[in-house]
Amino acid sequence: MSASAEINEIEEGLALQPKFDASGLVTCVATDAQSGDVLMVAHMNDEALRKTIATGDAWYFSRARQSLWRKGETSGQVQRVVEMRLDCDQDAVWVRVEQTGGACHTARRSCFYRAVPFGKGGPVTLEFREDCVFDPQNVYRDKR
Amino acid sequence: MSASAEINEIEEGLALQPKFDASGLVTCVATDAQSGDVLMVAHMNDEALRKTIATGDAWYFSRARQSLWRKGETSGQVQRVVEMRLDCDQDAVWVRVEQTGGACHTARRSCFYRAVPFGKGGPVTLEFREDCVFDPQNVYRDKR
Repeated sequence: MSASAEINEIEEGLALQPKFDASGLVTCVATDAQSGDVLMVAHMNDEALRKTIATGDAWYFSRARQSLWRKGETSGQVQRVVEMRLDCDQDAVWVRVEQTGGACHTARRSCFYRAVPFGKGGPVTLEFREDCVFDPQNVYRDKR
Repeated sequence: MSASAEINEIEEGLALQPKFDASGLVTCVATDAQSGDVLMVAHMNDEALRKTIATGDAWYFSRARQSLWRKGETSGQVQRVVEMRLDCDQDAVWVRVEQTGGACHTARRSCFYRAVPFGKGGPVTLEFREDCVFDPQNVYRDKR
């Protein structure tokens, strides 16, 4: 197959052929199915992707721990996938999820709890936009 | 500073201290400010991040072309940033944007124009969910 035919097959085809990076991962964005807010950005390896597709629960691969991980397996803050989308070059996945509690280990609903003011010039001071939605001491205690 | 104090400063601090990867990049998710749909996933280097913050236009760093790139500079399909958020460990950015036309080079509004059916078992057949919103022949002609 020519290079352009191969690109066309990846972009316009019906076959799932994820383009994993050198570490065997694709980027995954999880958004709140109701609000549309981005909850977290994480990674999936082939097994995490397959398990998510098979079960409808969000599975990821932790680069820090180098292990497969079902979101919420220690915290109880699970993600049920409502819809999964794949991007044009098949190296990124978007899951719309029903998030129990909060997605972030800091106990916020979203990992993106700070805004970056822009267009002002000068030094940047982040602005907090979200409160905690659970008690991390309780949720993660004895479970790590 | 101890490791835990450093993590606390990154996660709970007011200072922008992006954690660029080995290639000098952070991941950036752009969502449609109106619909909440994920439009694209791309990358920013330090300069792209600074230019985005300074101007309110979305700038990225193209890994394929190894160059800084203002979204829409060749296609006219620009992104005006409505809000910028930073994630807990400061290695990912979320921008809510007003997207002119379509974000995807395939001429769809979003790069995530195919759904991955899940929970069914068996082989996966992708499902198209978006039509083209511009004529790529026209938009990119003589501009690449």
